Amino acid sequence: MSPTVGVIGGGQLARMMIPAAVNLGIDLRVLAENDGESAGLAVSQLGDYRNTADVLQFAQGVDVVTFDHEHVPQAVLAALVEAGVAVRPGPHALLYAQDKLLMRERLSALGLPVPAWARVADEAQLDAFLAENGGAGVLKTPTGGYDGKGVRIVRSAAEASDWFGSGDLLVEELVSFRRELAQLVARRPSGDVATWSLVESVQRDGVCAEVIAPAPNATSRVADVAREIAHTVAEQLDVTGVLAVELFETTDERLLVNELAMRPHNTGHWSMDGAVTGQFEQHLRAVLDLPLGSTAQREPYSVMVNVLGGPLNGTLAERYPALMSAQPTVKVHNYGKAPRPGRKVGHVTASGAELDEVVYLARAAAAHFEG
Amino acid sequence: MSPTVGVIGGGQLARMMIPAAVNLGIDLRVLAENDGESAGLAVSQLGDYRNTADVLQFAQGVDVVTFDHEHVPQAVLAALVEAGVAVRPGPHALLYAQDKLLMRERLSALGLPVPAWARVADEAQLDAFLAENGGAGVLKTPTGGYDGKGVRIVRSAAEASDWFGSGDLLVEELVSFRRELAQLVARRPSGDVATWSLVESVQRDGVCAEVIAPAPNATSRVADVAREIAHTVAEQLDVTGVLAVELFETTDERLLVNELAMRPHNTGHWSMDGAVTGQFEQHLRAVLDLPLGSTAQREPYSVMVNVLGGPLNGTLAERYPALMSAQPTVKVHNYGKAPRPGRKVGHVTASGAELDEVVYLARAAAAHFEG
Repeated sequence: MSPTVGVIGGGQLARMMIPAAVNLGIDLRVLAENDGESAGLAVSQLGDYRNTADVLQFAQGVDVVTFDHEHVPQAVLAALVEAGVAVRPGPHALLYAQDKLLMRERLSALGLPVPAWARVADEAQLDAFLAENGGAGVLKTPTGGYDGKGVRIVRSAAEASDWFGSGDLLVEELVSFRRELAQLVARRPSGDVATWSLVESVQRDGVCAEVIAPAPNATSRVADVAREIAHTVAEQLDVTGVLAVELFETTDERLLVNELAMRPHNTGHWSMDGAVTGQFEQHLRAVLDLPLGSTAQREPYSVMVNVLGGPLNGTLAERYPALMSAQPTVKVHNYGKAPRPGRKVGHVTASGAELDEVVYLARAAAAHFEG
Repeated sequence: MSPTVGVIGGGQLARMMIPAAVNLGIDLRVLAENDGESAGLAVSQLGDYRNTADVLQFAQGVDVVTFDHEHVPQAVLAALVEAGVAVRPGPHALLYAQDKLLMRERLSALGLPVPAWARVADEAQLDAFLAENGGAGVLKTPTGGYDGKGVRIVRSAAEASDWFGSGDLLVEELVSFRRELAQLVARRPSGDVATWSLVESVQRDGVCAEVIAPAPNATSRVADVAREIAHTVAEQLDVTGVLAVELFETTDERLLVNELAMRPHNTGHWSMDGAVTGQFEQHLRAVLDLPLGSTAQREPYSVMVNVLGGPLNGTLAERYPALMSAQPTVKVHNYGKAPRPGRKVGHVTASGAELDEVVYLARAAAAHFEG
């Protein structure tokens, strides 16, 4: 009777779909690998997302399958499609979030702005690229990387000799950027597209640490270009659900596409509290092909700060009395994960009219979870 | 490791605690009577809230027990307290939400403004009250009534002869009121109290149909008096968690206390989308004795309209395409209950700066679920 959405993966992105699903009366079912994962409340089956039988069993009786992560193998996705399951985003789109080489090739073919890049099969090809691009580059494994993993800066191929031998690599120019931006967009199968504010994201050790919505001092031209890029990617790659386009804003005011994520994304967490329709509700609407909600900001500024690692001793909740007493307006999100150095265990969002104050509130709130 | 809250009752109030619990990393466990109730996702045990053994078993391992409804017998509550379980609100407070005669006696003793009332044991006493109060009155069964049940207007005791014989009844004057208001307040055990905006509630057939926050054209004196009444009730009755004080605003600008509810309440549903801290998050904070969140409104006006009954044919979700297409800013809440005439199956909330427009948006959205 209720619309039923199956989510492959039991991490915090699946978890944060639960509130939206409860509000809208959507039956959310999660396929997790283990007991006790972040989205545990909605887990309907334990299984391996790489195992076709597990995934086909999970998909029985759901209206649509979507994802907490992008690691489901294409063969498994193909089996779902073969079995008549609605998969959103579809395998033909997810491919470009799974393989950075294919992504670079496709975006280049579409004429979208990307850093200089090359497919390199050996050290000689890498050295040739470095020589042509100022002597440095960013080397990436095409698949499997996230949060700074599978990425390294290299100044000679010899530094990266250990990465060769298991397939081609992607090398990109070391972009001289002023800051990183992200454009979040949602698209439903029947075509509607909605974008949220262009945001600024601050990375620390390759991990998103802070997001400011909207990106301060972004010119309307930059905002227009970002929106246009996101529309083009969503439409040309036939992405359904939420898509995050991570961008470099260069020192000469160009935008270059850095990464794509075809799911709700850390750079959109602010929208849960800061936009009329948050990214998790919008993702559920989009994959169910329902009309998209307003993406307007509820306050002039929202700032999200990740809780990375969490307390050295004890739980996040033990810090609530001090945090909530000091910060009655900040919204706290706790992913229910054990604290561990560098692990994303939660986030906080502050909203208001004065950027400096909002940044202060969010950072001060997150600081309660440190040490 | 996580704070754990046990909720007795599996209705929509327990359901709407789930999003707040997920966000804050609270382990929410629900004791429901049957499979498939509104809060089904969080049900940890099926059982009878009137059965002490069931309730004691449910309470094992939770930090605090709270409620979806006020019907848990005092004997069961006493057994919980005896067993060392934190029960919030406590039995000594809940008593006044369970028994309207005791509530009237207590509020009168506190000097709070209430309608003229009497305890009547027989028809003669009722006729005497009616003769002294303009020939009409509102007769109520002291316990068990809600949503217009257990309440009738009488003009002679003979009309109510069928209600006598199983204990004293409460009769109240037929108040000449301009409108009904409600003051929602939250109180934590260690003492903090937070009130939301005074709201206007529109009842239809004894059921809350629409709520406007803040109550339009309420004078600051009226707002101050309402807040003071709610503070007094919360503190003097030692209520913890959310308390709703339903009020009559009389044609001569007095406020009289109508009913008390010691739990999140229909008149506070607007706060989920319209306040910085919604009533369900605040209730969880309060019963866990955490600092309370800001109750500020996020927009100048929020209007909540109940979905009563729902579609004559099909599900609420079948109406989403038309509703969401027409209303991208309205927030939809679906309680996951089968449509049935008069049943509360969901609500919608609109927010904005112009009252007329916000009322229109909310009513137009709710109308999509009718017929």
